[in-house]
Amino acid sequence: MTTLITNATLLACTPDMPVVEGGFVVVEGTAIAATGDSPAPEIPGAEVVDVGGDIIMPGMVNPHCHMAMTLFRGLGEDVDDRLYRYVLPLERKFVTPEMVRTGTALAALELIEGGVTTVADMYYFETEVGRVVDKAGLRGVVGQTIADFDPPDHKTIDEGFALTEALVAEFSGHPRVIPSIAPHAPYSTDITVMNRVARWADEHPDVPVQIHLAEMDSEMEWCAKTHGLRPVEVVEKAGLLRKGLICAHCLHVSESDIKKMAHAKVCVAHNARSNAKAGRGIAPVEAMQAAGLPVGIATDGPMSGNTLDLFAQFGPVTMFQKLLGHSRKPMPSVEVIRMATIEGARVLGLDGRIGSLEPGKEADLIRIDLSAPRMQPVYDVYATLVFSAMAGDVRDVMVAGRWLMRDRVVETVERKKAMRDALQTAVRFKAEMSRIDAAG
Amino acid sequence: MTTLITNATLLACTPDMPVVEGGFVVVEGTAIAATGDSPAPEIPGAEVVDVGGDIIMPGMVNPHCHMAMTLFRGLGEDVDDRLYRYVLPLERKFVTPEMVRTGTALAALELIEGGVTTVADMYYFETEVGRVVDKAGLRGVVGQTIADFDPPDHKTIDEGFALTEALVAEFSGHPRVIPSIAPHAPYSTDITVMNRVARWADEHPDVPVQIHLAEMDSEMEWCAKTHGLRPVEVVEKAGLLRKGLICAHCLHVSESDIKKMAHAKVCVAHNARSNAKAGRGIAPVEAMQAAGLPVGIATDGPMSGNTLDLFAQFGPVTMFQKLLGHSRKPMPSVEVIRMATIEGARVLGLDGRIGSLEPGKEADLIRIDLSAPRMQPVYDVYATLVFSAMAGDVRDVMVAGRWLMRDRVVETVERKKAMRDALQTAVRFKAEMSRIDAAG
Repeated sequence: MTTLITNATLLACTPDMPVVEGGFVVVEGTAIAATGDSPAPEIPGAEVVDVGGDIIMPGMVNPHCHMAMTLFRGLGEDVDDRLYRYVLPLERKFVTPEMVRTGTALAALELIEGGVTTVADMYYFETEVGRVVDKAGLRGVVGQTIADFDPPDHKTIDEGFALTEALVAEFSGHPRVIPSIAPHAPYSTDITVMNRVARWADEHPDVPVQIHLAEMDSEMEWCAKTHGLRPVEVVEKAGLLRKGLICAHCLHVSESDIKKMAHAKVCVAHNARSNAKAGRGIAPVEAMQAAGLPVGIATDGPMSGNTLDLFAQFGPVTMFQKLLGHSRKPMPSVEVIRMATIEGARVLGLDGRIGSLEPGKEADLIRIDLSAPRMQPVYDVYATLVFSAMAGDVRDVMVAGRWLMRDRVVETVERKKAMRDALQTAVRFKAEMSRIDAAG
Repeated sequence: MTTLITNATLLACTPDMPVVEGGFVVVEGTAIAATGDSPAPEIPGAEVVDVGGDIIMPGMVNPHCHMAMTLFRGLGEDVDDRLYRYVLPLERKFVTPEMVRTGTALAALELIEGGVTTVADMYYFETEVGRVVDKAGLRGVVGQTIADFDPPDHKTIDEGFALTEALVAEFSGHPRVIPSIAPHAPYSTDITVMNRVARWADEHPDVPVQIHLAEMDSEMEWCAKTHGLRPVEVVEKAGLLRKGLICAHCLHVSESDIKKMAHAKVCVAHNARSNAKAGRGIAPVEAMQAAGLPVGIATDGPMSGNTLDLFAQFGPVTMFQKLLGHSRKPMPSVEVIRMATIEGARVLGLDGRIGSLEPGKEADLIRIDLSAPRMQPVYDVYATLVFSAMAGDVRDVMVAGRWLMRDRVVETVERKKAMRDALQTAVRFKAEMSRIDAAG
C-alpha cells in the first residue's frame, strides 16, 4: 500500500534541518520511499493526503519514561518526601501486571496524541509494557528494571534477570518493540549487579541498557560515601559505562565525567522539567553535546514530569540553557527539534531506522496543524514548534506506515476503557493515601 | 438574564483556595449572584449549563502584555541584537493605527482561546488597543507608552501625553476598558519625564501607571552610570515608586529594592518565560511575595514570550522558584493559580471587582475540560492545571456575564479576518527583514 502526502511544510530533520514548503512524502508499506518538494509525483493507486501546508516531521522520540506511572500523575505534589511517604508504599502494594497494563495504555494514548512515536520505558513487569506498546502500534525500547530495593516484581536479582530473559524471548526480532535491560541507578543497584548486567549485555549486544545516572544530590553523597566516587565513576567501575548506554538525567556531571562518558560513547536522555520540578538543577546539555554526546529530550515518568508531552519540554529545554549561558543564543529552536527527533533516535541506537524522513527509513511521521492564532505568523517554523505548538496541535500520527491517529482520533488504543481503568485504579490509590495520612 | 452553571469542579480562588466538587455559580446580568455546592438552586427562567464536572474558575489575568506584537512572534529568534537589528526598525516603519488593530485582534483571539479575560497592555496608539479590547468583550488596562526613543506614535513627550489624554477621554468610565499611562522604563523615559508622569498621575488617581522595571543587565549598567542608582531607585527618585504602580519584570531587585517596593506598595508582573528566553535570569518571586508584594503571572509581548498563553507560563513559574530554592517545595501549584487569578487582579488594582468567584464580583469565568488523557487522574486539581492543562483545554469563556467563547468557538472576534490581516502584515515584515539582511 502506498500513501502520498502532499503540500506539506516538510521538516525532514536530516543534518541540515531543511524546511521545504510544498513538500511531499511517499510511504510504501512500512517505509519511506521518497521525499521532495513540489510538484509531487503522480502515483497511481496511492492514497493521497493533501495536508494543506501543515507541518510533516518525524515522529518524536521520548528516550526516558515510566509509562505506567501515569497513574501517579500529580500525586503528592510539592511534598519533599513523597517518594518514601507515598510512591514506594503504593508501588509495593499496587504494582501488578494489570496495573502496569492500565497505566501503560493511558500513557500510550497520551504519547500518540502528543506526536511521540518512539518511547524508551523503564518499569516493572516490562513484558506487559511491551505488549501494550505493540498493540498501540508505537515503537518502544522496553526496559526491565533490575534493582536492590525489593521492587514490586522481583525479590532477587536472579528473578530480575529471569524477567529480562522472558522479555527478550517474547520480543526478540519484533519490528517495533525492542527489549532492554534497566539497572535502576548506581545507588539502587549494587556495583556487583551492575557488573553482572554488563557481562549479560556482552552476550546480548542487541539489547540496549538503560540507567538513571547522576540525578540526585543524595546519589552524589551515597556514591561518595560508599565508593569514594562520583556516580559516573561507579558505573565505570562496574564495567557498565559503555557504548550505547542510555543514561537518564546526567544532571550532576563534571567536565571529567563528561569526558569519560564521551570516551565510552554513552547516550543521554535529558529530563528538563522533571529535574527542575524537583528543584534539582539544570543539566549541562550544551557541554555534553559539545563533547559529542547525543542528547535526547525526555519526559521522565508522569510522577515526576506529569505529562508525556514533549512540546511541554521544549520551552524549558531551551530556556534552561539560555539561563545557564546568560544569553538569548544558546540552544536555538532548530537544535531543540533536532534533539526531539534524530538525536533522540541516536540516543536509542535507532538513528539508522527512524528520527528523520529519508528514503529507506521507517515511516514514523506526524502532522502538525498550524491554524491556531498562537501559531501565526510563522517567521521560523522551528521557533513556532518550540514556543507556540502544543500536543493538541498534532493532528495525525503514523508509525511504520500505519496511521495510529487521524484527525485527533487515536485508532489503536481503546480510549474509553483506558480512561475508565485508570480512574478506577486512582480511586484505590487515593484510599491508600488517606490511610497513610491518617496513620500520620 | 440569569445563567446557572452546575456540576462544576469549582475553584473560586477565594483566600482558602477551596475546591468544590459539584459546585454551582449563578450569574445575573454582568455579575455573580451566588456560588455554592450541590444541590444547585432551582431558578425559573435561568439558562442552565451543566458542565459535567469540568473546572469553573475565574477568568485569568495577564498583567503585562504588548498585544499588537503578535505580529512579531518568532521573528529574529535566538539573535542577540534582534531588538536593534529588526524590531526597532520594523516598528518605526510599520507601526500604524491599522497595524495595532491587526496585531491586537489576533492577540484578543488568542487570549480568549487561552482563558485570559483581563489583560494589561502597553504599546502605541493605545486608543486602538482599547477599541479592539472593547469589541472583543475582554477586560483591559490599556497603557499608552511614553518614551524618549522616538517611538512610532509620538515625536515629543507632549504628544505622548496628548495621546494619553485622548485615551482617557475615550474610555473614562468604561465598564471594562481602563485607560492607563505607561512610561516605558527607567532607561528609556527620562527621570524628568517620569516625574511629569507622577504629577499627572496625582491628578488622575483612577489611571493605573505601568512601567518596565529592573529587567535587563544593560538597564542596571545604564542606571548606575547615569544616576549612580539602581533602577528601582531611579523610579523612586522620579517620585513614581508609588501605590499601585504596575512594575513588569523586577528581575534585578535586591533585598533593599524589595523593601522600597513593598513600602511604596507597588505591584509586580512576573514574566518568567520572557525573562528566561532572553537568558536574563529568574525573578525572586517568593522573596517579593514574602515582602507582601502582589505578583501576577504575565506573558510579556509575543516578541519576547511568543504566546499569550498563561498555561505555558505555569510550569516555568513554579520550576524556576523550585530551582532557586533547590527543593520541590517552593511555589506549590495552588499558589501559581492564585497568582494567575486573584493576585493578578490585585496587581491591576481590580481585586475588588474580579479575580475570584464571589457574589457581587463581575462574572469573568472560564470552563476547563478535564477529559484529555494527560489530565487524568486528578489527585490535586491545582497540579493538574499547572502541569497538565494547556490553552486548548479551555472550553468556554465569560466576561461580565457575556460568553466570549463557547465550545472553543470565539464569538466576539472575526477569526478569519484577524488571521488574514495578520498574515498580510507578516508578509510585509518578512520583505523588510530580507532588505535589512541584504544590506548586511
